[in-house]
Amino acid sequence: MNIQGTPTRTIHARPDCSGVEIIDQTLLPHRLEFRTLHTLDDAAEAIAVMRVRGAPLIGATAAYGVALGLEDDAHDAALEAACARLLATRPTAVNLRWALERMQGVLVPLPAAQRRAAAWNEAAALADEDVALNQAIGRHGLALIRAHHERTARTVQVMTHCNAGWLATVDWGTALAPVYAAFEAGIPLHVWVSETRPRNQGAALTAWELAQHGVPHTVIADNAAGHLMQQGQVDLVIVGADRVAANGDVANKIGTYLKALAAHDNRVPFYAAVPGPTIDWRLANGSGIPIEERAAAEVTHIQGATDDGHVASVRLTPPQSRAANPAFDVTPARLVTGIITDRGVCPATAAGLAALYPEGGRA
Amino acid sequence: MNIQGTPTRTIHARPDCSGVEIIDQTLLPHRLEFRTLHTLDDAAEAIAVMRVRGAPLIGATAAYGVALGLEDDAHDAALEAACARLLATRPTAVNLRWALERMQGVLVPLPAAQRRAAAWNEAAALADEDVALNQAIGRHGLALIRAHHERTARTVQVMTHCNAGWLATVDWGTALAPVYAAFEAGIPLHVWVSETRPRNQGAALTAWELAQHGVPHTVIADNAAGHLMQQGQVDLVIVGADRVAANGDVANKIGTYLKALAAHDNRVPFYAAVPGPTIDWRLANGSGIPIEERAAAEVTHIQGATDDGHVASVRLTPPQSRAANPAFDVTPARLVTGIITDRGVCPATAAGLAALYPEGGRA
Repeated sequence: MNIQGTPTRTIHARPDCSGVEIIDQTLLPHRLEFRTLHTLDDAAEAIAVMRVRGAPLIGATAAYGVALGLEDDAHDAALEAACARLLATRPTAVNLRWALERMQGVLVPLPAAQRRAAAWNEAAALADEDVALNQAIGRHGLALIRAHHERTARTVQVMTHCNAGWLATVDWGTALAPVYAAFEAGIPLHVWVSETRPRNQGAALTAWELAQHGVPHTVIADNAAGHLMQQGQVDLVIVGADRVAANGDVANKIGTYLKALAAHDNRVPFYAAVPGPTIDWRLANGSGIPIEERAAAEVTHIQGATDDGHVASVRLTPPQSRAANPAFDVTPARLVTGIITDRGVCPATAAGLAALYPEGGRA
Repeated sequence: MNIQGTPTRTIHARPDCSGVEIIDQTLLPHRLEFRTLHTLDDAAEAIAVMRVRGAPLIGATAAYGVALGLEDDAHDAALEAACARLLATRPTAVNLRWALERMQGVLVPLPAAQRRAAAWNEAAALADEDVALNQAIGRHGLALIRAHHERTARTVQVMTHCNAGWLATVDWGTALAPVYAAFEAGIPLHVWVSETRPRNQGAALTAWELAQHGVPHTVIADNAAGHLMQQGQVDLVIVGADRVAANGDVANKIGTYLKALAAHDNRVPFYAAVPGPTIDWRLANGSGIPIEERAAAEVTHIQGATDDGHVASVRLTPPQSRAANPAFDVTPARLVTGIITDRGVCPATAAGLAALYPEGGRA
């Protein structure tokens, strides 16, 4: 989507394959800084410290990370080590495993001498496909937003959580793809952006990308989501997901479950928007999804811009107080109105998902 | 409760009535600073900018504010103006209105010459009664915690929201009075402290006062509350309230409703702990409770301590992004397991409350 009017992707390889350009998302919304990944270590670090984040973008970065990892040595041991190193960076998003398995599937059968070029090609193909998947999600979600607008003739109030926008993907986003599609289609809409403590991906990233693209939005504390729904100020909730189990249980950023409960209690439709690779067919339900516990410092400290424009971290809690930081939760399928996928919208059930992805259900 | 081992109240008049000492709660947990209110304006400002906050402490401060307001002029017009000025500071907490009506009830019938001394006496009586009410809440809530401990023989995991501790009252707190009572009784317990964005009264105040008193606790992002309940890590939730309607609907800090939904979904008992003056018998249900909309800057900016110990404010959002900041929400009585009052624990129903406060139900 646009940065100051210029269409931009979140990740792309340099034409000469000398590196991979990303936006350092840890500095947003205060500073827009591009960064070049030159090595496997750079890619692994970027995922681990969340310079790139969002399930689809983690997958794309991991794919490029494999390509970077094969630059010096493309033999089996090096390929295996690169994939193992990247897989260990983050536990919850299934796209990471999916992207690495896809790279291995293409590369392992090839002679070592051909792997380097093939890795760059496959990573680029994966990134392009991510864009296409998200555009398809956008089309299917647009139909939901359009139907609501045609029914009410009012500005459509969409709530989202965390960042499942173009910054979380290669372009368009998952949860925000329908928002951008509706915006481009001229449907009047407004987005409630939940700040998403502790890392504030809503306040920092979703607000920033919506502002850059010109989409009307308002930031709220996560705590305000239920009240706004009680007051009839939310027409639908669309979130992304880090992993959807085969039965429709949705693992997503911590706090998603609370929004789903509030949506259910107020009869507000609640959707998760995901591309096929986010569905984990090996998990019958969400109870097996590993929940990443991140550093307590993400809760005890927060980063922001000082009056003079510096990015600074301040402590929020007393030094003696411990903090806990589970980074994801699992929303039971019973609270999910539907899954917006690249192949259409389906009920959050095993049958619903398998009908759209028969090959997945068989796997 | 204790500050570094010394029992301390949040508010008290100087013995010579030359001023009222408070803790400036806007600086906690980073700096403990006492402050003297000398005038009605000082008292109104302290309530409005939340140097003092919490429904019971707002009530006590308003009572002392009336006393300060009569120092120069104790005639009817001055008394009326003082009460009107204080009443306009915050809209949601009913204790403010209650305290001012009580002061007027005592002072109006008196000749102006006697009002000054009577105001100081009545404010002190109101503050002492707040302590007694909270101790009674503590006794009744202790029984719930003790029963849980006796049933499970495990550390009792209590979750709270915002600050309804001694800092929100004159002493003991409302939601935390049972916690302190159980801690003093030697029952092993641990408190999950929800940070409570946007003003972070949990991370800043509840964590600080529990740390000062030595009660084990862990700070979490508000978003983590549902996940912890799903994981069976919460035995009961106790929150305070700014106003309870006659039917048991509970207005409390924004985000309380989300915790109540999660508690209900996971069969975790959910209690509001309130003294009698927090019950608004004039409101049949919560739909009539005014919800304060506070400044957007509370969402877009946050205050914390820098590495060198300064208290600084940093911006969290892009400059172009708007923010909304409803400060309270209403939890429907159907989600509330019970109300812990100074007269015992009752169901969150009109009949339950009226049985404990027959004089209120008649009013």
